[in-house]
Amino acid sequence: MSATLNTNNDQTSKHNFAPLKNDRLLRALRFEPVDTTPVWMMRQAGRYLPEYKATRAEAGDFLSLCKDTARATEVTLQPLRRFDLDAAILFSDILTIPDAMGLGLYFETGEGPKFKYTVRTQSDLEQLPVLDVNDSLDYVMRAVTSIRKALNGDVPLFGFSGSPWTLATYMVEGGSSKDYRYTKELLYSKPEFLHQLLDKVAVAVTDYLDAQIHAGAQVVQIFDSWGGALGHRQFVEFSHNYNKRIVAELKLRHPNVPVVLFTKGGGLWLDIQADSEADALGLDWTIPLERARRVLTERQRHLTKTRKKLQKPKAIQGNLDPATLYGSKATIEREVRSMLDGAYALGDKTGYIANLGHGITQWVNPDHAKYFIDAVHNYQI
Amino acid sequence: MSATLNTNNDQTSKHNFAPLKNDRLLRALRFEPVDTTPVWMMRQAGRYLPEYKATRAEAGDFLSLCKDTARATEVTLQPLRRFDLDAAILFSDILTIPDAMGLGLYFETGEGPKFKYTVRTQSDLEQLPVLDVNDSLDYVMRAVTSIRKALNGDVPLFGFSGSPWTLATYMVEGGSSKDYRYTKELLYSKPEFLHQLLDKVAVAVTDYLDAQIHAGAQVVQIFDSWGGALGHRQFVEFSHNYNKRIVAELKLRHPNVPVVLFTKGGGLWLDIQADSEADALGLDWTIPLERARRVLTERQRHLTKTRKKLQKPKAIQGNLDPATLYGSKATIEREVRSMLDGAYALGDKTGYIANLGHGITQWVNPDHAKYFIDAVHNYQI
Repeated sequence: MSATLNTNNDQTSKHNFAPLKNDRLLRALRFEPVDTTPVWMMRQAGRYLPEYKATRAEAGDFLSLCKDTARATEVTLQPLRRFDLDAAILFSDILTIPDAMGLGLYFETGEGPKFKYTVRTQSDLEQLPVLDVNDSLDYVMRAVTSIRKALNGDVPLFGFSGSPWTLATYMVEGGSSKDYRYTKELLYSKPEFLHQLLDKVAVAVTDYLDAQIHAGAQVVQIFDSWGGALGHRQFVEFSHNYNKRIVAELKLRHPNVPVVLFTKGGGLWLDIQADSEADALGLDWTIPLERARRVLTERQRHLTKTRKKLQKPKAIQGNLDPATLYGSKATIEREVRSMLDGAYALGDKTGYIANLGHGITQWVNPDHAKYFIDAVHNYQI
Repeated sequence: MSATLNTNNDQTSKHNFAPLKNDRLLRALRFEPVDTTPVWMMRQAGRYLPEYKATRAEAGDFLSLCKDTARATEVTLQPLRRFDLDAAILFSDILTIPDAMGLGLYFETGEGPKFKYTVRTQSDLEQLPVLDVNDSLDYVMRAVTSIRKALNGDVPLFGFSGSPWTLATYMVEGGSSKDYRYTKELLYSKPEFLHQLLDKVAVAVTDYLDAQIHAGAQVVQIFDSWGGALGHRQFVEFSHNYNKRIVAELKLRHPNVPVVLFTKGGGLWLDIQADSEADALGLDWTIPLERARRVLTERQRHLTKTRKKLQKPKAIQGNLDPATLYGSKATIEREVRSMLDGAYALGDKTGYIANLGHGITQWVNPDHAKYFIDAVHNYQI
């Protein structure tokens, strides 16, 4: 690790944050040399950790835990005490924005998130307020600053948000969905209505991520968890175009804060997703990393000069099947090796962040998460 | 339509079936010229039709309907009375094989299929009988023959089965699943156990499709509904290799009966799926048809001579998002045009069957299904 670190974020002096000690992940995002592969895990603060369950039990329900600054900080740090992780990620929910808009988020045991109100009519839409995120989502910003301070510069902190399309599916359906019946009905029968909703959500997501950066997030990730449910043309129109706009706005305000775009099920659309100012694309386990690198390199080669300036080569992040962690140490090591072989197959020895292809599940033995992280670091690039 | 039809099936004389009048779909599968694009819809006999609901109500529950030869025949024919479809498909359930193996299939209102017993231990596995499909699944064969007779040669009849991987997920989980927790746990921690199960199921699927062909099915489709949940390498090992073996066996026994392989979420793996003797690949709506054609053409070009003989060019089938049918007539027509433009973009004017990218949903207005089918036929190839 170099002695003087290139911090990417102008909030350090404002908050008097400690200087960053481990910038492996930020270096990989900038295609700078790294000593080993940076690694973190989506949902790394979660139910697979007994200490998380204990803190959550103290807080009461999940939302109370998100709103409790000290405990949200505590659970964010828990996995870092166990594992040699190269990033922390804000502990929060993907649905804070619709909740702040008044839809009434709640959780029933054993079921996914639900909303008391849905957005399906023009009047539903008009009732959605324009959010002042520093007001209605102040608890998130407090958590970001608190976590950043508690990290004391150990590793960079991720902020995050759901994508407009993903948030809209929850807002229209009133919760999780298998077939997105109502959202897709709007998409095909009232596309202009859905666009109004997406536009409203996109403004909120932009302000939300901007505020997280001001509060101390050093990198942000947009989760398009349900982008993969769309047709290829609809993905561009109803999801990607909004993500692209959000990234462009964030880059105007914070040119040096990296943005990761993660579309679950988006492996067929890397060329589409690369058409953005995102620094990295998150990948699920359906695409071999060598192939992802090839598609992205190929695309980069055909860009015009003007575009090349805006759209730098995309780093990649992912993509181990979280279920791999149900396997033995030997299985995990073999799968990590195969994944990293793919990531580095084309000669680039950076531009890659190891991760799972989706969140770690609650049934994983924490020791197996450690096997994963150590196997990544032990791999000789 | 030509006057003398090239029937593809040696069962015609045995059962004294009527000669086939509309062979558009079979011609497309053989890359022979067609007057217009053949079209059918997955789950075309289903809850979106009021007459289906009436017949089902008479039969009692869903399984009783499957086992009632006259009513299974009736519901298979219902969509053909309304729409100008180019194929019929056996009305049955995807889970008949595990049910016949004694797992106790049942349905609870508003929920997916469930099994009374699961297969997770060696002793569970050993208790699974080797099926004599003509005995334990005789009701399916009776339905096939009855439907084929009732069709009176109007259109060809599809038989079908779930793929071994897809059936195994239900058998291990005991029903539908979001994350395939137990199946993937086996995959990563006891792969040899999962292979034993898949092998057993693959034998049953082969015999099942073989028996359907003997009973009168003129084309068969393998539904790998959950293949897309696998990692790319696991897809090859735990799903595709079994499908490939089934297709090869069927081709030995019935060289002229076409086989369609449909993997939901398999768009990234067309090259893998093409490595089989299947005549066509079914596609969901995430992949543009022009791209699918390009990938398949490219792959074909690089085959050795020996392989080219076995692996003929693959036709494609699909891939309208079923939710498109929630849209207006104009929307449906626009989307169909765009889909068919893609299918024929590379110059081939055959080798394509229009379909949805998954089953039609219960909320579709039947008139809209008609718009879809007519739009396909009205498109000038």
